[in-house]
Amino acid sequence: MNLEKVERALIFAAHPDDEMLGAGGTIARLSKQGTKVTVVVFSLEDTGYSTAGLEKNVLEVRKKEARQAAGILGVHESVVLETVPQGDISIYRECIRVIRKCRPQIIFTHFRNDKNRDHRAVSEITDESCWKANQNVLTDLGKPWHTSQIYCYELSNLFTNPSDIVDITATIESKIKAVKTQTSQFALLPGIAEYLRSLAKVRGYMIGAEYGEAFLLSPLMPCKH
Amino acid sequence: MNLEKVERALIFAAHPDDEMLGAGGTIARLSKQGTKVTVVVFSLEDTGYSTAGLEKNVLEVRKKEARQAAGILGVHESVVLETVPQGDISIYRECIRVIRKCRPQIIFTHFRNDKNRDHRAVSEITDESCWKANQNVLTDLGKPWHTSQIYCYELSNLFTNPSDIVDITATIESKIKAVKTQTSQFALLPGIAEYLRSLAKVRGYMIGAEYGEAFLLSPLMPCKH
Amino acid sequence: MNLEKVERALIFAAHPDDEMLGAGGTIARLSKQGTKVTVVVFSLEDTGYSTAGLEKNVLEVRKKEARQAAGILGVHESVVLETVPQGDISIYRECIRVIRKCRPQIIFTHFRNDKNRDHRAVSEITDESCWKANQNVLTDLGKPWHTSQIYCYELSNLFTNPSDIVDITATIESKIKAVKTQTSQFALLPGIAEYLRSLAKVRGYMIGAEYGEAFLLSPLMPCKH
Amino acid sequence: MNLEKVERALIFAAHPDDEMLGAGGTIARLSKQGTKVTVVVFSLEDTGYSTAGLEKNVLEVRKKEARQAAGILGVHESVVLETVPQGDISIYRECIRVIRKCRPQIIFTHFRNDKNRDHRAVSEITDESCWKANQNVLTDLGKPWHTSQIYCYELSNLFTNPSDIVDITATIESKIKAVKTQTSQFALLPGIAEYLRSLAKVRGYMIGAEYGEAFLLSPLMPCKH
Amino acid sequence: MNLEKVERALIFAAHPDDEMLGAGGTIARLSKQGTKVTVVVFSLEDTGYSTAGLEKNVLEVRKKEARQAAGILGVHESVVLETVPQGDISIYRECIRVIRKCRPQIIFTHFRNDKNRDHRAVSEITDESCWKANQNVLTDLGKPWHTSQIYCYELSNLFTNPSDIVDITATIESKIKAVKTQTSQFALLPGIAEYLRSLAKVRGYMIGAEYGEAFLLSPLMPCKH
Amino acid sequence: MNLEKVERALIFAAHPDDEMLGAGGTIARLSKQGTKVTVVVFSLEDTGYSTAGLEKNVLEVRKKEARQAAGILGVHESVVLETVPQGDISIYRECIRVIRKCRPQIIFTHFRNDKNRDHRAVSEITDESCWKANQNVLTDLGKPWHTSQIYCYELSNLFTNPSDIVDITATIESKIKAVKTQTSQFALLPGIAEYLRSLAKVRGYMIGAEYGEAFLLSPLMPCKH
Repeated sequence: MNLEKVERALIFAAHPDDEMLGAGGTIARLSKQGTKVTVVVFSLEDTGYSTAGLEKNVLEVRKKEARQAAGILGVHESVVLETVPQGDISIYRECIRVIRKCRPQIIFTHFRNDKNRDHRAVSEITDESCWKANQNVLTDLGKPWHTSQIYCYELSNLFTNPSDIVDITATIESKIKAVKTQTSQFALLPGIAEYLRSLAKVRGYMIGAEYGEAFLLSPLMPCKH
Repeated sequence: MNLEKVERALIFAAHPDDEMLGAGGTIARLSKQGTKVTVVVFSLEDTGYSTAGLEKNVLEVRKKEARQAAGILGVHESVVLETVPQGDISIYRECIRVIRKCRPQIIFTHFRNDKNRDHRAVSEITDESCWKANQNVLTDLGKPWHTSQIYCYELSNLFTNPSDIVDITATIESKIKAVKTQTSQFALLPGIAEYLRSLAKVRGYMIGAEYGEAFLLSPLMPCKH
Repeated sequence: MNLEKVERALIFAAHPDDEMLGAGGTIARLSKQGTKVTVVVFSLEDTGYSTAGLEKNVLEVRKKEARQAAGILGVHESVVLETVPQGDISIYRECIRVIRKCRPQIIFTHFRNDKNRDHRAVSEITDESCWKANQNVLTDLGKPWHTSQIYCYELSNLFTNPSDIVDITATIESKIKAVKTQTSQFALLPGIAEYLRSLAKVRGYMIGAEYGEAFLLSPLMPCKH
Repeated sequence: MNLEKVERALIFAAHPDDEMLGAGGTIARLSKQGTKVTVVVFSLEDTGYSTAGLEKNVLEVRKKEARQAAGILGVHESVVLETVPQGDISIYRECIRVIRKCRPQIIFTHFRNDKNRDHRAVSEITDESCWKANQNVLTDLGKPWHTSQIYCYELSNLFTNPSDIVDITATIESKIKAVKTQTSQFALLPGIAEYLRSLAKVRGYMIGAEYGEAFLLSPLMPCKH
Repeated sequence: MNLEKVERALIFAAHPDDEMLGAGGTIARLSKQGTKVTVVVFSLEDTGYSTAGLEKNVLEVRKKEARQAAGILGVHESVVLETVPQGDISIYRECIRVIRKCRPQIIFTHFRNDKNRDHRAVSEITDESCWKANQNVLTDLGKPWHTSQIYCYELSNLFTNPSDIVDITATIESKIKAVKTQTSQFALLPGIAEYLRSLAKVRGYMIGAEYGEAFLLSPLMPCKH
Repeated sequence: MNLEKVERALIFAAHPDDEMLGAGGTIARLSKQGTKVTVVVFSLEDTGYSTAGLEKNVLEVRKKEARQAAGILGVHESVVLETVPQGDISIYRECIRVIRKCRPQIIFTHFRNDKNRDHRAVSEITDESCWKANQNVLTDLGKPWHTSQIYCYELSNLFTNPSDIVDITATIESKIKAVKTQTSQFALLPGIAEYLRSLAKVRGYMIGAEYGEAFLLSPLMPCKH
């Protein structure tokens, strides 16, 4: 991973929250150093959950919460695809368009073996979109763009052998603060802030830092040198 | 995992400390409920480290520290094999003898994919010894004994999908206190106590408890029912 | 696996037969000890097979055969979802509802690496439904319920390292008898009864019993203790 | 792999080109020895690519190019399913029909871990269709047929341990010539001819031949002897 | 697997018995069709078992039993290396010498993931020896020889996806009879004959035969065609 | 992989040749840009080969050839450990000493799943030595040193998903020339120069370069940022 020269970073998340839970400290660190960070959320709802149990205005609430968190982390732009991340061709087209528009040096996405079906789907879609975005096809979606770094972040399926750990000592408080804005999710995730702080301590310890975030290199496209 | 009816438990560790780092809270919980816990340490030194850099009396110091920790965790018996855990047939014989003498209902050992070569070796030796201990051979080493539960504990290679998490809320302080007696190892592992507490919080969160320890079922021998 | 204290068990099967082929002996043993066993069948047809070659009344025949087998095995309730087990969100909702209604202590399902696409799909749906059923969401589908034991049964892709083998010596004849009621399937599966008896002997031998059924712990959710 | 006695061979390809890129030399060698080779192409377009950027007549052009290549390689029959290879039941039916009509002794298909989603889907569909084609069901689709050899060919995800390498020294020039007819694809794949020649040299070297093609045994159905 | 043209076959076994337990039916079938079968046993003792519990003359007894079984199965030559199969360079030399002397068209060996350490070691030694035997080195050990088929047989770690199943209906009784001569092992393996017959039925069913033996292609060296 | 800022690079090779076969182009590119490259060869002989078939002066010949190749590639220092890379503790000490003396920013080593036992052993030893070299122990072997980048090179077991490909268009001729100095090995590896050139073309094609070398990130130690 090479964070220093990154001008533009792109984070894919199945649902709002995912990007800050998995990579919030790194997002804040990047934006602090001047990197333009774009977050792409696929859906405001988890496909595992039906709208049946949710009030209509919850979606509005979540959008507002997401804006608050983005402000705290310094996210430059947030995109909501409003689509279920399951196999539809139009999703790939949308992702290719976003990648070619954003032209990131680094992309973060979900873990391929996450227990959540939507997360796994986003991971797969990201990989393929990165590869297709780099080919000389579909030129109506923008000019081909090569992203040489693609990494997965972790949520609750911890990496046995993370390939990279980012020191987030300087931004852990922003991460926690951002997560705490997501009040509509508190019933579902009690204690999440303390969980995140503890996990950051665990990952930080592994590189001799106070707090860290772990990542796993996605193997689909070889980096070129 | 079935902890309630366990009368005797056996923990294998490549070096002193490993058993308390990986399973200290569970050891303390078992001993509190009346289970007799035996700890088997293979070697007082890590094969990756030469004695060259160690003072001779460090071994004495480590033994004393191990006794202190055992007292805090309520370990019933500690055995030091004083052998390098690498492939020698006599080690298997020794482990079979220990298993048949202890007759445990549950065994804890290292993770097969740990980054430490000695840890991997202990994991493999444990598996095979459990299996051989149960067969009607080598009767000079004791009567055959079937251990139906074998679990791996985690150190720094975290399990992506632990099969079991034990609630150690009631014994986390004993675990931390036991680790802090290992003063001769502090140069090597600064911050280890805080790391362990954080990891326990992470694992506890996954089962809705304050503190937890994660384990992975060892697949060598099927449990019978 | 802890069968003794199981009050309610739930078995998921892609098609009728699957549950008795994979876990018939264990089902009979559970029902004999007083456990209420519920069987959930996704579809009366295999998606790999078209209705084109089947007479319309075959569905009626299969339902009748399923009832006969359920009677022999002591199944308390049979549910047919009448749906193809492929990725539809409504299926997850249905499974969550069933789990929360049945409130099982143990769930049996297909193997994640089975060669049959429907079987793999059911395995994945079961895992995710168990996890979602335990969360504080979708309360219109019932109260959250935690199932701590989830196991896969085997059909023709045998487990290299089963985690558990259940002694079915006392119920093997019920299993065979139940399978023999499925006469509409005999053209497809000649010799199945003898296959099942032989496999049960192979698995029984591994635990020193006359007949056995092998299972593999599903790793998605850690058991808590 | 047993090529000598093969009377009929069947090659599945997600898109035109795939079969010649992965197995062109082997196809030409088989047709030279008198084997009837049938190529089944799922779609004239890659689902990752939209028609948006393609002129309508490109499809006509691709069909013409495919015919030219088939002539050079000696393909006996080409079938275009004109369907997206993603999960639809009707595809399985179509593949079973093709297999039962062709009655091949050997089938070649994509690699299960290819980075291209369509390729992975074709690999999975092939496996299941072969298995279903051999069962005594769906008799409206033809008489059951057992194909004892199923192999994957490689494109850009090279096999670490190929199970078989075919000497294509005598047919490498036909393979290259066939690929060069695919002029509509040149913008996408510049240098592909030289890539293929180099890869054939690499694979040939591993068996002491000038040129080779690597294959991986598909493990779904055991060969019977 | 191509059994028809095999003039010479070689079977590696860690201990006497292993070859007949895993491949006895196939050995008998090969010898019946005129193939010269050579069995290479590494050791008369399992390294997991010490001689401590064995009478000295047990070795003599085992040799005699092995000769009886070899007679029943039609084994042409039996070689006992009298060495522990663990990493010593001289073992590789010995195996290369045996392979070059026997010049087999097919080799059978243990499964790489067997739970028995000696079995895993033999599997690894076989693979490497086959590869080295084929290179233009160590000419004091004989002329280079290429064995194009290497297969693993199964004992108690069953293959989830066997690559080949051999019909042993005509030789199952010889296999059982050969195993029954191993009377010195009966205390260790009660019921083994019935286990083998049941497993053969299970494997036979998978190919539509009465009895079968399952094998897994060893992936180290690609077959050349 | 970050080659630009690398002041010192270290390459581990089981035998002379391995480093140039796997990473010769990258070595030459690094030395051209001013990086000091150190090559560590474990043994002048392959443990799979006995000295029996080799003339005594072959060792002298190989040393001379290695010096020639090192000159062509611009290797700064060559170290021959003269030891068999199999499990001895003294080897780990030696490697830790070398790493701490060289203080490399990047290390290249063998692939963990190479078919050659010595290669696998070197890969494992490298990983563990890097990790130990970074700890505050064994201070008689030098001051702790953290190497943040560890990569495997490929020989004949090609990577299915390489993590990095280095453009070696500018140094391919040096690589070929270096390999051609190894005349004592020509009987064993006829055509090796052409194989290497073809493989470099294959790998180059994947990143849009004329020639390339593929690497796989070693996952043992997370990179820190």
